[in-house]
Formats: sequence, C-alpha cells, structure tokens
Amino acid sequence: MDLEIPKKDLLRLVSRCQGVADKKSAMPALANVLLAADGSTLRVSATDLYLGVTGQVNAQVKTPGSVAVPARDLLERIKAMPDGPLHVTTSEGAQTTIKAVGSPRRYTLPGIPGAEFPQLPMPTPDAPRLELPVDLLALLIARTHFSISTDETRAHVNSALFEWSGDRVRMVSTDGHRLSKMEATVAGSAATATMLIPLKAIHELRRLADEARAEKDAPVVTITQSGPSAFFTIAGTQFSVKLVDAQFPPYQQVIPAMTERSIRAPRSALADALKAISLAASDRTGGVKISVTSGSLRITSESPDTGNAFDELTIDYDGPELTIGFNAKYFLDVLNGIDDEEIIFGISGELDPAVLKAGNESSERSYVAVIMPMRI
Amino acid sequence: MDLEIPKKDLLRLVSRCQGVADKKSAMPALANVLLAADGSTLRVSATDLYLGVTGQVNAQVKTPGSVAVPARDLLERIKAMPDGPLHVTTSEGAQTTIKAVGSPRRYTLPGIPGAEFPQLPMPTPDAPRLELPVDLLALLIARTHFSISTDETRAHVNSALFEWSGDRVRMVSTDGHRLSKMEATVAGSAATATMLIPLKAIHELRRLADEARAEKDAPVVTITQSGPSAFFTIAGTQFSVKLVDAQFPPYQQVIPAMTERSIRAPRSALADALKAISLAASDRTGGVKISVTSGSLRITSESPDTGNAFDELTIDYDGPELTIGFNAKYFLDVLNGIDDEEIIFGISGELDPAVLKAGNESSERSYVAVIMPMRI
Repeated sequence: MDLEIPKKDLLRLVSRCQGVADKKSAMPALANVLLAADGSTLRVSATDLYLGVTGQVNAQVKTPGSVAVPARDLLERIKAMPDGPLHVTTSEGAQTTIKAVGSPRRYTLPGIPGAEFPQLPMPTPDAPRLELPVDLLALLIARTHFSISTDETRAHVNSALFEWSGDRVRMVSTDGHRLSKMEATVAGSAATATMLIPLKAIHELRRLADEARAEKDAPVVTITQSGPSAFFTIAGTQFSVKLVDAQFPPYQQVIPAMTERSIRAPRSALADALKAISLAASDRTGGVKISVTSGSLRITSESPDTGNAFDELTIDYDGPELTIGFNAKYFLDVLNGIDDEEIIFGISGELDPAVLKAGNESSERSYVAVIMPMRI
Repeated sequence: MDLEIPKKDLLRLVSRCQGVADKKSAMPALANVLLAADGSTLRVSATDLYLGVTGQVNAQVKTPGSVAVPARDLLERIKAMPDGPLHVTTSEGAQTTIKAVGSPRRYTLPGIPGAEFPQLPMPTPDAPRLELPVDLLALLIARTHFSISTDETRAHVNSALFEWSGDRVRMVSTDGHRLSKMEATVAGSAATATMLIPLKAIHELRRLADEARAEKDAPVVTITQSGPSAFFTIAGTQFSVKLVDAQFPPYQQVIPAMTERSIRAPRSALADALKAISLAASDRTGGVKISVTSGSLRITSESPDTGNAFDELTIDYDGPELTIGFNAKYFLDVLNGIDDEEIIFGISGELDPAVLKAGNESSERSYVAVIMPMRI
C-alpha cells in the first residue's frame, strides 16, 4: 500500500472507527483498524464482531493494498502530525509508516496483513432500505438512551427497541426502574420494522448522528435490516449492528393509561431544584421526596451524614397533598433530555409510577417517561 | 451565629480553604472549615495541622459565634445557591442552616462547635516581614514545582528550598533524576531566610498566587518566618506552613559549572517534537533518544509494542555527533515552564547530565534545569 491523504480526512475516518475497535478483546486483531486502498479510495473499518463501522474518502493511491494497525496508536500519531498531506506506506511484514509530507516527522507501526482482519457483514442487495432524517434518529436516542439497562447479562433490556409501523417510528428503553418511549410521525414513509439495538450501538449511533448534524444540514440515515444485522448509513459511514435476538418487555403494560393528577411545572427550574436538593440525598439511594400541595411543589432530602435540604416551586395545582420518593437522577435524565419550557408531571398514589411528558405534546411527536417511586 | 453574606464572597473564601481541609484525616474535625463571625467580619479557616489557611470578608453579623462544618459539603451547597445574599445561622448542637435570601432553597448541615476546631498557628508580633511581588513568587514556583520529589517518605526532597540572601531570592527542587533552580533579584530588599516548603504547600501557594494575580494588578505577598512555621499573606488570605525540618541536598554540586557543548534550539518546536516522539516511547521508561549532529537535532523512540518514531529540527550546531537518552517528560516539564522563544541545551558526554536554560538570560533572573541521562 502506498497513498497520500490529507491529515484531516484520515483523522476523521480513524476517529469514527476507533470507538468500535475493541482494545480488550481476546482476539488482538479487533484492536486494529483496517486501512484498505483501492482505485482512488481509502476505506477505514473497525469491528468488535458485534458492531462494525466503515468509512471511505478520496485518496491518491499509488499502490493499492490493505493493512490493519492498532486503532488507538494510529489515532494518537495522526493527531501529532502537522496539518497537510500524509504519506502512508506499508512494507513487507505489514509494517506501516506514516510520514508528514514536507516534514521529517514519521511513525512506523507494527501491523497485520489486511486479509487477516475479520470481514464485516454486508446487507443482501435486495434488503429493503428505509430513510429517516438524522435529526429524528438523534431525537429518538436523546430521549431514551439513559434508561437503557446497563446490565450486560440482561440483553433484552441492555438495548433499545426501535419500531417502525406505518408512518410512526418509536424508540423504547427500560431498566426496570424507569421507562422512556419516544414516538414520531415520518410523513409519507410507511414501513414495518422491529429491532433491538444494543446499548453500545446506541452510543455509537448517537456519536455518528451528532457528527453528521454538525457537518451538514438535514442529513438522512438509511436503515437496512438484513439477516441478523441492521445497517445504518449516515453521511457516507456505514455502521452495522448485530441485533439482540430476544423479547423486549411488554412496555405498553408499564405505561399508566392515565394518572389521577397532572401537574404542569417549569422544566429548568424543576431540574435546577432537583439537582440542588439531591446534593443532600443519601449517596446510596439518591432519593428525594417530592410533595405537591395547593400551589406548590416541594423537594426535600436528608441523610444522616450530610444534613437536609429543602426547596419549593410555585405550581398551578389545587388538590390533596401527596408525597412520593424518587431517585432524583431518573428525573434529571428525563428533564435534561427535553427542551420544552414546561413538563407535565402525572402522579396517582405514593406507590404508583409517575409519568413525565414534554409540555408541548403534538400528534406528530409524543414522549412519555415512567419512573417508579422509591420508599424513603 | 447569625449573619448575611453575598454568595460570591462566601464561595470565594470557602473555595480557598477547601484545598487545605483534610478529608482523609483520622481527626474528622480537619475535614471541616471553621466559620467565625465577629464584629462585621466573617473569617473562614481550614487546616490539616501542617498547613493552615484563613481568609476574611465583611458580613452583616447579627449574632457573633463560630462553627465548623464539612468543607466539601458546604462548598457544593453554596455553589447550588442562587446568586445574592445568603443567610447563615447555627442552632444548638452546631446545626448550621444556609438559606438563600428571597428564595425557599435552604440546607442544614451537621457541624461542631467552633471551639472544638484546632487553633491555627500565628506568627509572633515581632517576627520580621519580607515582601515579594506575587508575580515573582509565581515564577519561582512555575519553574521548579515539577521536579519536587513526590515521595512523601523523603521529606527533604518532597519540598522546595526557598532562600533569600541579600537581594536575591531562589527556589530549588530535585527528585534525584532532575533539578530546577530559579533565581531573581528583588531590587532594594535585602534579607536572609531559608525554608523548606513541602509539596502540598507549594501547590496551595501556586493556587493562591494565581487567584491573586487574576483579581488584582501586581499584588504582593508578605512572608514571615516564626517558630517552625512560615506565614504567607496574599490578598487578605493568610496561609501558614509547617516547614520541613531537614537538610536539602547540596544542590550546587549537582549543577555542572559548564558543559562541553551549548546549543540554541527553538523552544516550542522542540517541545512539540518531543511530545510527538514520546508517543512511541515505551510506557515504562518514557525514554527518547536525542542526537545532535551538524545542523540538526534528531529525536527518536521505539518500543517493541508500538513501533518507532522520528523527528528532526534544524539547529545552529557544528560539532561531533552525540546521542543521549532522556525521559521526555522531564524535558517537557522544563520547556513548558519557560516562555522564552529559545532555550539553551548544554550537553557533555552521553552519561553526563544535560543542562537547560532559558534563551534570554539576564543577571536579574536566571534559571537552570539539570536532567540526568538514561540508558535506552
């Protein structure tokens, strides 16, 4: 392999891939990124056998070829190069040299032949392709990613449910203590799909979506389900995910059809108060008490070590007093994921789940979060 | 105790103290800050029995008194308060309540009576007072702090030597692998002092000096040596240090009187190259090789795992070739502490210490760093 490529292009591709490369795998090849040069294109890929990512860019290829080199070492060295073109060559034994054109700085990295790098899955050519605005994918993830269970032994909830039925797309996640569901209409795009996307893939999709939105106006993601995998193509980067083969919990049963009381509250003031009061919550539980009473919402916490805390917001409520204990973090995750000025807080009894919704609901976009109470 | 004080004043005082409060001490009182209100003044103090810090500010004191409360908890809670005046009160049992005036937000913290907090040392009234521009104290520390030994079992080098003789002040530090010495003239201020200031105190002095410089033009530090302690007063904050009672190594013997070769090199280009090449140095040693040859300085590194690296700078040198191994970090600490455009790099043989100096030496300010070579 022998090619020239601007530093910024190579840096962007390798940065995108290195989140997927697996430094801790028992298979050392997976800590690498594959560089494959052909025609006038350099492709850079990484995989951990569950996720795969491939990006490509134009390069001046003098000799085609492929090599796999350690992802993190390569990324560090590209960053340390001066701006401008880089000259990348491989010698026998897959030694890879990167030299800044017009500067003496150069690095040589031990590599392995490209043929020894695992092949990434590809969709069958006839698999149906769905298109979704990247903004919408980012919104689905932003409102649900925090309640995905982090317990890797429970694959069916260590993932987000993505559903497409008719012109509605939906993402749902739960960790047993809380649930988030975001739904939206994709005008004129009827389709049917159901997939369980694992947590690590959700993180990577979020990163790709944010990058694509920063670079371009209104980008689109193409989604293809094929065999056991789903393929997401965003701004020239193809991201493959081995989907979770399990049954997501029957989430509709968890969402209360209605709550006895429904209270509008200012979102950022509520978040600020919850954050302040949770400072004095016990480290173990993070629990705060929320009381509603005529005209006000009070938040309190106490712990034997750090004393107690109190705050109060004025709200439009006129009903019986009710006090419920909650993990403040669960509330804050939801409030920070919303950008409406107000939220709607639905409660019934002190042992019933609470429901949070965005203040400006529409039939086009609807969000609901369910949070289980805790005894304090 | 009952007083009102603007949030920003209390925040500044408690921030300054909390670096000294000792969260891990076997004596729980030391994790506290002391709040002492008297007349129209609030004093805030902390100590770990070796270092002490006290600041004061005007406050509306309704009832004088004193209480000690956990430093970190207090700081977090002050930060979480809205801007404006805070109302601080203590009840029996030293419970301390902080309430934002005009807002319902309040915190109650468990405290201990102020009388149970250890007394901070005070200088004797007749102890001589020296005055030094804070800029100069900051410069002495910036050029020497990184080579203080971090080995707490070796108190005589786990500290910096501060000397004042005639109109010269000097700070020296060494960890056995390198040494830094900064000297300057204090016009018209003849004095004599020698003190060994422990590393933790150097960190705190640096922080206080940086704060004072950010707030005010050309502030001055007053230094008083009294009994086993030294007292530094900067911008109204008094900082006391129990000095190290030990013998600093005879540092003059370590600094080569002259080196066989003396090379001028561009500081920031050299630092950039060293940083880039040290990426490929072995993690264990951080070692790079520096070679000088006619007209050029080459830096190389290699490790069995991560390959090798090469860079080269053009320098004004015409002499025999010489290659010496160094820990790149030792060089980078020195180069990052200097702001001259050029540095002077003095070397003799491959087993002899190297000497680094700032490019624009003057008789007013002189700096020298000595770095021992390493076998690579």
